[in-house]
Amino acid sequence: MEITIKSENKVFNGIQGVYSHHSTTCKCEMTFAVFIPKKDKISKFPVIWYLSGLTCTHENAMTKSGAQYWAAQHGVALIFPDTSPRGKDVSDDPSFDLGQGAGFYLNAVNEPWKKNFQMWSYINDELPKVVFKNFPVDYKNQAVMGHSMGGLGALNCAIKNPERFKSVSALAPICNPVKSEWGQRQFSAYLGDSKEQWENYDPTILLSKSSFKGQFLIDQGKNDNFIELLKPESLEKVIKNKGLDSIFRYHEGYDHSYFFVASFIGDHIQHHSNAFQKK
Amino acid sequence: MEITIKSENKVFNGIQGVYSHHSTTCKCEMTFAVFIPKKDKISKFPVIWYLSGLTCTHENAMTKSGAQYWAAQHGVALIFPDTSPRGKDVSDDPSFDLGQGAGFYLNAVNEPWKKNFQMWSYINDELPKVVFKNFPVDYKNQAVMGHSMGGLGALNCAIKNPERFKSVSALAPICNPVKSEWGQRQFSAYLGDSKEQWENYDPTILLSKSSFKGQFLIDQGKNDNFIELLKPESLEKVIKNKGLDSIFRYHEGYDHSYFFVASFIGDHIQHHSNAFQKK
Repeated sequence: MEITIKSENKVFNGIQGVYSHHSTTCKCEMTFAVFIPKKDKISKFPVIWYLSGLTCTHENAMTKSGAQYWAAQHGVALIFPDTSPRGKDVSDDPSFDLGQGAGFYLNAVNEPWKKNFQMWSYINDELPKVVFKNFPVDYKNQAVMGHSMGGLGALNCAIKNPERFKSVSALAPICNPVKSEWGQRQFSAYLGDSKEQWENYDPTILLSKSSFKGQFLIDQGKNDNFIELLKPESLEKVIKNKGLDSIFRYHEGYDHSYFFVASFIGDHIQHHSNAFQKK
Repeated sequence: MEITIKSENKVFNGIQGVYSHHSTTCKCEMTFAVFIPKKDKISKFPVIWYLSGLTCTHENAMTKSGAQYWAAQHGVALIFPDTSPRGKDVSDDPSFDLGQGAGFYLNAVNEPWKKNFQMWSYINDELPKVVFKNFPVDYKNQAVMGHSMGGLGALNCAIKNPERFKSVSALAPICNPVKSEWGQRQFSAYLGDSKEQWENYDPTILLSKSSFKGQFLIDQGKNDNFIELLKPESLEKVIKNKGLDSIFRYHEGYDHSYFFVASFIGDHIQHHSNAFQKK
């Protein structure tokens, strides 16, 4: 569980660090970023896990979302994991939406992916152990959020680990991958043809069979080129049918970019901060 | 003066656009970015010119500084020019601090640079004409700011055009290039050995012979690896000796990165907004 410091920069009175460690789960060196606010008397900070989308590394949200401003305001830590295993010895695909940078936060069972592409276990088991051992963050106050493929990951993490996460939110998440080309192609490759496996990573289907105690916050741009692949209406329907507490917002003119993420991430960090303050 | 739209994204209810045009000054296609806040009743917005540092394009501050949040709050437009002429037909140098990405906001007189490296005229004459023709920005309400080499550019622009700019600020600016390796090497290459030419682009020297009516806001990180090259103490001394109105801040722990820029750019946009509101 040793970590290597790649960089540490002061930002908004806190520290934005980039670290790496050898992952026994993904069988490669993995990089992740952590923002820790200014340390006053607080010994452990509430922590928001931010899962990124296709093509992203730990770096995109760390540099482009403006999240640290809001995290500093609210006194919460941020974790930015990578989106897949990496390296020349790790399987890849020439397309942007399969292989490295496109881990889909699942445990692959098919060749050639299963050796390294164990992102579900990495995000839910190994990386938390590394983070809680090395940083002043509070296991009892965790939230998870994400963008696009990372929104899928965040929703799945929260729905399947309701005891771990007090709060969940997503920006333009992939909501119903079983019914979308952003899902079918990757689930075929990573998971094979098991319907049960596919449904195990589809937040709309998972939520139809389970629940989540916190309030959902979902933002979606109306001018998002990928909206047909994201299928927000499927998730919205399940949330409404089950009468779950949610804020589901569609925003005129916003697209899928980090400009959209930056515009609303303050609301998301506020949302999670509210949840942390509830007993 | 025709411009090409490269991209437009909604952010914080405004539009962040990237545009290009053929520059007759730099004799190449030049790219620049513009943020225009949400249009309500305002027909023309006050405008802040943001000049970037070595290696940067129009994109760095646009994506990493978080400036749009603050610009939207204050109802001001932002312009992000490129830092040099670009292209395969434009002279370059293998090092990061000369040639493309390192225009130093000056008009080169030496070969092979003088054909394209006319950034002083570009920033002060050509690009303003393009911007004021194509965007709803107010010529009478302009401010200029910059980071590192862009801080040098911003200070020079304000000191030499006090009638144009109501306000100036800089983050970790190159303050005294005539006395620094960040200056001597580039001024030799671009300007030759004319002392007069060199002093014409040194804000510390320029300011010792002139003035500026507005308040200076200068931020400098104490943990900045380049502080010996930046020489903030030279500029500070001239400002104090002349009794000019200034806020000159040194920040414990901050380095030269965009994390430093992001941490303080809100204060800079507030500073310029205050100046715009003065009659």
